[in-house]
Amino acid sequence: MNKKGTYHYNTEALYDATVEALKRRGVALKDIAEIVYTLQKSYRDDLTMEMCMENVDMVLKKRECIHGILTGISIDEAVEKGLFPEPIQSIIANDEGLYGVDEILPLSITNLYGSIGLTNFGYLDKEKIGIIRQLDRSKEKVVNTFLDDIVAAIAAAAASRIAHYIPGDIRPEEKDK
Amino acid sequence: MNKKGTYHYNTEALYDATVEALKRRGVALKDIAEIVYTLQKSYRDDLTMEMCMENVDMVLKKRECIHGILTGISIDEAVEKGLFPEPIQSIIANDEGLYGVDEILPLSITNLYGSIGLTNFGYLDKEKIGIIRQLDRSKEKVVNTFLDDIVAAIAAAAASRIAHYIPGDIRPEEKDK
Amino acid sequence: MNKKGTYHYNTEALYDATVEALKRRGVALKDIAEIVYTLQKSYRDDLTMEMCMENVDMVLKKRECIHGILTGISIDEAVEKGLFPEPIQSIIANDEGLYGVDEILPLSITNLYGSIGLTNFGYLDKEKIGIIRQLDRSKEKVVNTFLDDIVAAIAAAAASRIAHYIPGDIRPEEKDK
Amino acid sequence: MNKKGTYHYNTEALYDATVEALKRRGVALKDIAEIVYTLQKSYRDDLTMEMCMENVDMVLKKRECIHGILTGISIDEAVEKGLFPEPIQSIIANDEGLYGVDEILPLSITNLYGSIGLTNFGYLDKEKIGIIRQLDRSKEKVVNTFLDDIVAAIAAAAASRIAHYIPGDIRPEEKDK
Repeated sequence: MNKKGTYHYNTEALYDATVEALKRRGVALKDIAEIVYTLQKSYRDDLTMEMCMENVDMVLKKRECIHGILTGISIDEAVEKGLFPEPIQSIIANDEGLYGVDEILPLSITNLYGSIGLTNFGYLDKEKIGIIRQLDRSKEKVVNTFLDDIVAAIAAAAASRIAHYIPGDIRPEEKDK
Repeated sequence: MNKKGTYHYNTEALYDATVEALKRRGVALKDIAEIVYTLQKSYRDDLTMEMCMENVDMVLKKRECIHGILTGISIDEAVEKGLFPEPIQSIIANDEGLYGVDEILPLSITNLYGSIGLTNFGYLDKEKIGIIRQLDRSKEKVVNTFLDDIVAAIAAAAASRIAHYIPGDIRPEEKDK
Repeated sequence: MNKKGTYHYNTEALYDATVEALKRRGVALKDIAEIVYTLQKSYRDDLTMEMCMENVDMVLKKRECIHGILTGISIDEAVEKGLFPEPIQSIIANDEGLYGVDEILPLSITNLYGSIGLTNFGYLDKEKIGIIRQLDRSKEKVVNTFLDDIVAAIAAAAASRIAHYIPGDIRPEEKDK
Repeated sequence: MNKKGTYHYNTEALYDATVEALKRRGVALKDIAEIVYTLQKSYRDDLTMEMCMENVDMVLKKRECIHGILTGISIDEAVEKGLFPEPIQSIIANDEGLYGVDEILPLSITNLYGSIGLTNFGYLDKEKIGIIRQLDRSKEKVVNTFLDDIVAAIAAAAASRIAHYIPGDIRPEEKDK
């Protein structure tokens, strides 16, 4: 589709690198699944933590999601080490009030999951449930400017996957083979 | 995910209604597949019209795409019959210079297919290949304000599906089961 | 920028038509300003209802916002009269669970106001403060499928305008002359 | 609007840093203005290079645009120095085929300018006019993965500003005071 270079990593290796990067920054998949459970429990009586884990996992296997997650975490880590030039180094380090790139980058994740992904992301960005709140509070010590929004996006995307699954109907993705 | 009403149509019936609506407005799936072929032929030596048709078909089976297509066509038809109140009736009927809702609504289709879907849509909106140009030219007689952008979005989405398919790798959607 | 028709209405007339259309559907500008006040009061000690009204007004004077508002309201009204073909007539009338075009169309409003507009919109879509909740509850009698999201978008946009105003700094829009 | 830190830089200083960063990466404002001229010349007989320069300048004075530009350039520079961890270091360095974050980040610029900004960006992403083509070709020596898309976004935004200016009507931004 474009003149860009060819692709060297397979999705298996990229998935592993993504789970590892999240872990390195203090986020377990279970933490994200818990947010998904909170978001969706009032809409589905049959919801289990296992379903939430499974759907988080599916999101993390999409290349576009992987790219967004790894890019965002790399920015946080580079800024934590003071590697970006001023003034953007300080702006990101302080997550300054009008800095909004951390909310734009996760659109590479939420957009793929339709309007439910989008609105859930906006909700989580303000409500900061579970691990998102912890990440937000730890900002005085570490740089999590992008990470909290990325976790919100993964949870919003997984919640949207669950919302789109209609028992008795065919799951959109299964049609896609 | 929300307090909205439950869903009564299955995707099979919705798909049929969508193909029928496009046909009623003068667009055959083959017309869209030809745009996809033009977009992608320089990137894949093995591209066939059959692959393009198949990928257009997959896009038309997604509920979010179906909703976008049927809503856009219904607006065109309502305006064609003069059913919208002024001033928006004239603005849509004339596809006035700064009216941009017809380019926003198809984001419900292109967003689902990542950044390649988005940039291809922008390209087609300006270059107006094949049936898109015909629809654009017929605007003096019929209202196709939304239709040409919808066709561009379907073609852009199908092209993105093809671009994301890496032989020897697992197709993202197949992972999603 | 495009081959579309030239523009016949001036923004003054379009603004009046927009305020009138909102009123016809039961929404006063004051209702929207109250949501803005709720959203922003914890961030600015000096916030007044007058500032909120003024910022709602500014949003309603942008052509792209006007187009989004008038298009959404026209869809609601057409569906209320049963003018759209099936199956989309029922899908919109019932605001069915996976129908998401009503959340995509208001992006024509929120996108213009950056990431704060976007996340506030997602938040309001779930929390349904003030008039948004009333519109949502009246859905059994009238069709407000698009209207509640449009009101959320206007409020989110106005809130973003306020958030971007930094006393002592130059307001971005004032730079734009 | 959020719990983020307060803002220390004024827009004057940020604007200077942005022009300087673009220059450091080989992009003069005149290069961007030339793309704008090419995009818009067929729509306005009265278009001058001066108008294009002026509109590029206005885009560069918006905080959200500045943030997007400086973040993207910092990623390119960090990757050029090999500072990001694998596998994302190689993916960005090679601008691999399915990497799309470089097309998502500039939405922080184009979104602010409505649907014309969006479609022009998609067009430039494929057509690569002027300096964008030069940046794309220099990718074997330097990392310009984000820069070419950022330049396309600035040009698309400036073109949209010009398209929205209707002589005899009031410019939307002037209403915004």
